[in-house]
Amino acid sequence: MKIICNQIDLLNGVNTVLKAVSTRTTMPILECILLKSTLNGFKLTTNDLEIGIESQVEAQVIEPGSVAIEAKILSEIVKKLPDNDIEITVDENNRATIRCEKSKFTISGQPSEEFIPIPEVTKNQYISISQLQLKEMIRQTIFSTAVEEIRPVTTGELFEIKNDELCIVSIDGHRVSLRRIQFKNAPEDIKVVIPGKTLNEISKLLSTEDDKEVKIYFNNKHVLFEFEQSMVVSRLLEGEFPDYVDIFSRDYETLVKVNKKQFHMSIERAALMSRGSKKSPIKIVMQENKMIITSNTEIGNVYEEVDIEKEGKDMEIAFNPNYLIDILKVIDDETLYLQFTNAHNPCIFKPIEGDVFQYLVLPIKIYA
Amino acid sequence: MKIICNQIDLLNGVNTVLKAVSTRTTMPILECILLKSTLNGFKLTTNDLEIGIESQVEAQVIEPGSVAIEAKILSEIVKKLPDNDIEITVDENNRATIRCEKSKFTISGQPSEEFIPIPEVTKNQYISISQLQLKEMIRQTIFSTAVEEIRPVTTGELFEIKNDELCIVSIDGHRVSLRRIQFKNAPEDIKVVIPGKTLNEISKLLSTEDDKEVKIYFNNKHVLFEFEQSMVVSRLLEGEFPDYVDIFSRDYETLVKVNKKQFHMSIERAALMSRGSKKSPIKIVMQENKMIITSNTEIGNVYEEVDIEKEGKDMEIAFNPNYLIDILKVIDDETLYLQFTNAHNPCIFKPIEGDVFQYLVLPIKIYA
Repeated sequence: MKIICNQIDLLNGVNTVLKAVSTRTTMPILECILLKSTLNGFKLTTNDLEIGIESQVEAQVIEPGSVAIEAKILSEIVKKLPDNDIEITVDENNRATIRCEKSKFTISGQPSEEFIPIPEVTKNQYISISQLQLKEMIRQTIFSTAVEEIRPVTTGELFEIKNDELCIVSIDGHRVSLRRIQFKNAPEDIKVVIPGKTLNEISKLLSTEDDKEVKIYFNNKHVLFEFEQSMVVSRLLEGEFPDYVDIFSRDYETLVKVNKKQFHMSIERAALMSRGSKKSPIKIVMQENKMIITSNTEIGNVYEEVDIEKEGKDMEIAFNPNYLIDILKVIDDETLYLQFTNAHNPCIFKPIEGDVFQYLVLPIKIYA
Repeated sequence: MKIICNQIDLLNGVNTVLKAVSTRTTMPILECILLKSTLNGFKLTTNDLEIGIESQVEAQVIEPGSVAIEAKILSEIVKKLPDNDIEITVDENNRATIRCEKSKFTISGQPSEEFIPIPEVTKNQYISISQLQLKEMIRQTIFSTAVEEIRPVTTGELFEIKNDELCIVSIDGHRVSLRRIQFKNAPEDIKVVIPGKTLNEISKLLSTEDDKEVKIYFNNKHVLFEFEQSMVVSRLLEGEFPDYVDIFSRDYETLVKVNKKQFHMSIERAALMSRGSKKSPIKIVMQENKMIITSNTEIGNVYEEVDIEKEGKDMEIAFNPNYLIDILKVIDDETLYLQFTNAHNPCIFKPIEGDVFQYLVLPIKIYA
């Protein structure tokens, strides 16, 4: 094998596929990047058995071939080489020589046959959406995937496509997050659960430019994300995802309109009265034109007032402030609605208009 | 006590003094910031018994007084309050109430009498230099202070003032770093050793603006750095600092002129052939117009060529690449001289002109 490519192109490719390299594994081949020449360049592939990534690099192919090289050392070498042409040659013993200007590295590779190929996904059913939009939707929901695998399916996010709408839902024991977008030309109904880890990695690869699209293909077992020069394949999570539709009640006793930033900052400050990850509850009292937030701990006490517009009854309720902060951090709207029934039932966060997001958070029962 | 100040001013002051707050201590008072009203504001003071910091905050003093408040909670509260007026009142039981807009915190403080005052330094002997210049000199030498305290004095840096010149020297078992600047109106000769930890903290407080000065006062036991609104007092290290003057030999067998960036990047790449903190040696061969850098390990091997201008004999020598990298990282010059006698003696790094810096690094003996 002998190929010549540009340092920047190779670095971009390596950085992309690096996200599916196993770090702690007893199978050394999972720590490798597969290089395989194609018609007008070569393909980099990694596979940690959960996610597989493939990235295309433009190159001049002088002699076709393939080799698996340890990802860490390849990435470190390419990162430190000058921005110029890189020549990679591989001999019959899988020894790779990397040349650039006056540098020459020789490292041992492994035969490409040992590399575990990533699963094939037939390109039938797919949706195409803006990369930026998908990135935002993941950011706005990923925090409420379950961490512990008591119910493994909840460590992922539901992607449900129905009626020209994509709805992403995550649910842990305390919260539900929901984001939806409309789009045209949706395929037939799809309902799959994508692992949280996959979505975290995908999110890092998604462009922040508004006009770039990503195609998402589905089958029963796998999902495939297709970008410009790369694709990511992930297994899906099996099992019944909790029903989320009925959770978001339309009934309420109290509806509050509040400035997001003021509410957010007051909760952040109230949370300072508890230390570590175990947060003391904060109390919220809804009165005529104001919300009063208090917390009283061994550190001290805090009193916060936030202006609101209220419809319905006055009420008192208590929360773990971290659960509220997680939600408030990802909402970009200036104003939002909070909807309550009573101190024992969840609070729902909704936009002032439309239904692009909905968040639900359970209260802490401190009132008799 | 009752004072009113601006949030930004208070935050700046708190961030400054935070650098001398003990985190792991059995004396809770060392985790506190002392607030003490002055004529036109108040002073914040911290003291971890090695370093003491004092910072002045402009404020309206309605009722003079003082209190010690836990640094961490005060800093977190001030950071999250809006950019507006903050009112701090303290009652006779040292309970502090912090008000800003519609927020109110009440936390317990400690009597100011329990606070351990920072040592007084009489303002006699001092030098005044540019903050930026001092920051640079610390950055360019701090890495070769000794970490282990076999010889405690070498965990600090020598500040020697003689003949209108300030010379900063650090020395560990493998390297010596030296930086000097000329200045006018130097006081009498001074020779003190300042703890590395102090210099690290000072360095973070120094401005990157070129026209700001810092005054440094000395006595037998302490050094005082005086900035705009702050001052830092640190104890000095006792003991005889190793003699550095004779180490920098003027004799050489080989003198090499090299481009700093090319040399640096080649060494960085050669270092990739070893993993972890224990670096395999790299070999350097000086020939007529080029330097050849090689490293050969179980990972693979690397060959690097760097153009040089050489005076004197050809030679071969080996180094721990990390020691060279530490030095090359902090040199800003485009070109530099490397001076060698033989494979068993140190290499000296010098500027092409003048003597503002000098670095010495010991070789690894791999040649018989």
